[in-house]
Amino acid sequence: MNVVPPTSASLIAPLAGVLPSGGLLTAEEDLARYSRDWSGDHFGRPLAVARPASVEEMSALMRRCHEEHIPVVPQGGLTGLVGAAVAADNGEVVISLERLNKVRSINPIDFAIVVEAGCILEDAKRAAEDNDCLLPITFGAQGSCRIGGNVATNAGGFNVLRYGMTRDLVLGLEVVLADGRVWNGLKVLRKDNRGYDLKQVFIGSEGTLGIVTAAALKLYPRPTHIETALIGLRSVEDAMTLYARARRDCSDLLSAFELILRRGIEITLQARPDFADPLSRAYPVYVLVEVSAGGLVDLSAMLGDFLAGATDLVEDGVIASSRAQGERLWLYREIMVERQGRGGRYLRTDVSVPISKLAHFVADTLAVLEEARPDALAVTYGHVGDGNIHLNVVPPLGMGPEAVEQLFEDAEAHIFAVVDRYGGSISAEHGIGRVKQKAFLERIDPVALDLAAGIKEAFDPRHILSNGRILAPKSVIDYR
Amino acid sequence: MNVVPPTSASLIAPLAGVLPSGGLLTAEEDLARYSRDWSGDHFGRPLAVARPASVEEMSALMRRCHEEHIPVVPQGGLTGLVGAAVAADNGEVVISLERLNKVRSINPIDFAIVVEAGCILEDAKRAAEDNDCLLPITFGAQGSCRIGGNVATNAGGFNVLRYGMTRDLVLGLEVVLADGRVWNGLKVLRKDNRGYDLKQVFIGSEGTLGIVTAAALKLYPRPTHIETALIGLRSVEDAMTLYARARRDCSDLLSAFELILRRGIEITLQARPDFADPLSRAYPVYVLVEVSAGGLVDLSAMLGDFLAGATDLVEDGVIASSRAQGERLWLYREIMVERQGRGGRYLRTDVSVPISKLAHFVADTLAVLEEARPDALAVTYGHVGDGNIHLNVVPPLGMGPEAVEQLFEDAEAHIFAVVDRYGGSISAEHGIGRVKQKAFLERIDPVALDLAAGIKEAFDPRHILSNGRILAPKSVIDYR
Repeated sequence: MNVVPPTSASLIAPLAGVLPSGGLLTAEEDLARYSRDWSGDHFGRPLAVARPASVEEMSALMRRCHEEHIPVVPQGGLTGLVGAAVAADNGEVVISLERLNKVRSINPIDFAIVVEAGCILEDAKRAAEDNDCLLPITFGAQGSCRIGGNVATNAGGFNVLRYGMTRDLVLGLEVVLADGRVWNGLKVLRKDNRGYDLKQVFIGSEGTLGIVTAAALKLYPRPTHIETALIGLRSVEDAMTLYARARRDCSDLLSAFELILRRGIEITLQARPDFADPLSRAYPVYVLVEVSAGGLVDLSAMLGDFLAGATDLVEDGVIASSRAQGERLWLYREIMVERQGRGGRYLRTDVSVPISKLAHFVADTLAVLEEARPDALAVTYGHVGDGNIHLNVVPPLGMGPEAVEQLFEDAEAHIFAVVDRYGGSISAEHGIGRVKQKAFLERIDPVALDLAAGIKEAFDPRHILSNGRILAPKSVIDYR
Repeated sequence: MNVVPPTSASLIAPLAGVLPSGGLLTAEEDLARYSRDWSGDHFGRPLAVARPASVEEMSALMRRCHEEHIPVVPQGGLTGLVGAAVAADNGEVVISLERLNKVRSINPIDFAIVVEAGCILEDAKRAAEDNDCLLPITFGAQGSCRIGGNVATNAGGFNVLRYGMTRDLVLGLEVVLADGRVWNGLKVLRKDNRGYDLKQVFIGSEGTLGIVTAAALKLYPRPTHIETALIGLRSVEDAMTLYARARRDCSDLLSAFELILRRGIEITLQARPDFADPLSRAYPVYVLVEVSAGGLVDLSAMLGDFLAGATDLVEDGVIASSRAQGERLWLYREIMVERQGRGGRYLRTDVSVPISKLAHFVADTLAVLEEARPDALAVTYGHVGDGNIHLNVVPPLGMGPEAVEQLFEDAEAHIFAVVDRYGGSISAEHGIGRVKQKAFLERIDPVALDLAAGIKEAFDPRHILSNGRILAPKSVIDYR
């Protein structure tokens, strides 16, 4: 049978009139900014961009898409790193959450905020601060990413150690389902054991099971004291020993424990000549330690005593004497992250292993990489209190694009093989999307795959939502 | 068509030989201790009791049950309060987890323990302590309940405020599915964002989606200092104002904040003449406050400063001067819980509302009860830092069993109606099981019900697992 492939225009024709004027963008020049993600690594031209401005509009839109089998991909701030929110080229309608961006309510006695999915994380964090509270999700992209994306990817970041992943902060969700029905699971209850906890299914599902339109999130008391230290150490082993002690000495007040190898500090020094080497000389390994508390705890004494008791491990260190100095210490890490690729592409990995194995894992992986691809520049840093390492690979200057692709493929295969040996995860916080899908599907237990496919089938039987993210793409439309 | 109902013997005949000798109990005298739960409120004679001693045996057992459509109910310590783990009378095979009771591994550097589902919570807690760690799940039944039940019910308790529900402590699960396949999701990674987080679906599913056989759980540093205070206050409002301050002053070191109304203290005093009234005179409201920490934090100064700054609220109070005295303060609460029913039945409720509404909620509910059923004795206590109140109802002495039933029905309807007005939950931590099912199904959003039913269908298409818990029972066998 010969089927004539439909044009983009015919595919999206059924959407005409579903949203008020301005709700559906189709002009080429309007589509551009919804087509490329923050990293610049992923591009996909959408069939159209739908921008519902209310839950009712979102519901009507999805009802029509479901009726007409129109594939969609929900999109937040496009800061994800696994290509989940960019459209399949000319194959999907982007559903932008940007117009659903209000803070619906905040209550400091409940320690809870209700925000719409399109709200930028930093705006939600500011609303919390204005109420003397803390919304703990914290990472580099917080000025661009949106709450819906944080929920859909179960975002991590610097403070997971203390406050958990985004999942741990979600009290309730409002979700528009694949068929347009609205599941209203918004609530600010701290404890609720009424049957299956449906929100858990949507969190981290990367847009494949429903479109989160709003979230109720836990807040914490805003810390009134924050102490930051940058410490020089002899080895990753020593860093992990120091972590084990910090975990006990600082009770549950440790809010960050970030590892940076010397090369990372050098990247910052090269990028920013106004930054001095932070300690008296160079050390192989650095950790950035933060403790924070509100109220009546004397933090500076605690941090001082902790470091004074660790002179067998700590070679040198600086404790920030002011909040500004503390923020400057963090810049050594942030600038490194921004500049690690020297403006070009680089391979990102985001792996985790049991904490007790992390030092050995880093040593093994770096040795394997050095052996296999001595031309690659490895940049290693991460949230080691969570066992999470970003072991990134920068190509040598001047390498051609095909050779770079091959380098990335080789390096990733080598890194993931070590992860497998250590019983680790190939995606600690970034998710799977499309970028990690092949590696994910190669490793997934068939029983787990069956269960996941069963959930997908129950929640999105026509496979119109983010088809091909996490799970393999399903050909659901005859003509595709 | 006339179908001859099968005998118990014929129903379980296909199980012969599946387990080694001693694995299947069928003698009347052997069934007794698997037939009645801890509260004594729920009874159900199982068709048989299967006691697999390994995951392989569990898998073989479930494969056969699936093939033969034999309904089963997994059973742990029988300490649940909603009748989920007791068999439907003569209609289900109990699958006891009691022989799967090992601590498989523990690693204090990873702050993780891997325990089998039949391990008694207190044994797992002791293993953690032996490794200088804390397994935070803490409640009255911890000497009898089993880890699998804690996971299946997402158990709460005293320390949820600080450490979260059981869900928040689960790093990984091993689950035998309805058809006997094993999902191996056991891992001790702190962060893992590889696709759908399947363990979340099983946690809190009350045995309806799979049989948890082992769990990897987060541990915390074992607190080296614990400070406990019992405080007398004028009102629940004042208790909640004090809580709001404690949350900020004590940073994240507050580990319990329990409310007890005066009647609760009186129950303890009546039950135990050796216990003196704990404060200089009687107060309408008491809170039991606990802060804990390890390492370098000076807790006693913190608690002292906190109380010194709250003289406008605190009428009187005692700070335990030793661990033994702290435990004695807790006994005022524990004895009250044990003796509240005067040895007879009483109505348990377990509701939650937003923290900011709790004081009004308690006042409204008690007023409604007093108006509607002045003969009822209300006992009110709970984990108010989580917005969770147990508002229980004790019948007057000498009331006949039918009148008691009617009282419970009336009282529950009145309490739940107030919960509804406050946007609260009719089950904060106990779950739904069979006891709360009617009230649950009357309130559930049809969209949520559809999603829940879809998950059930995907995970247990023959409805052999804990049929009729949470969701309405499904007649899956023609002759039943």
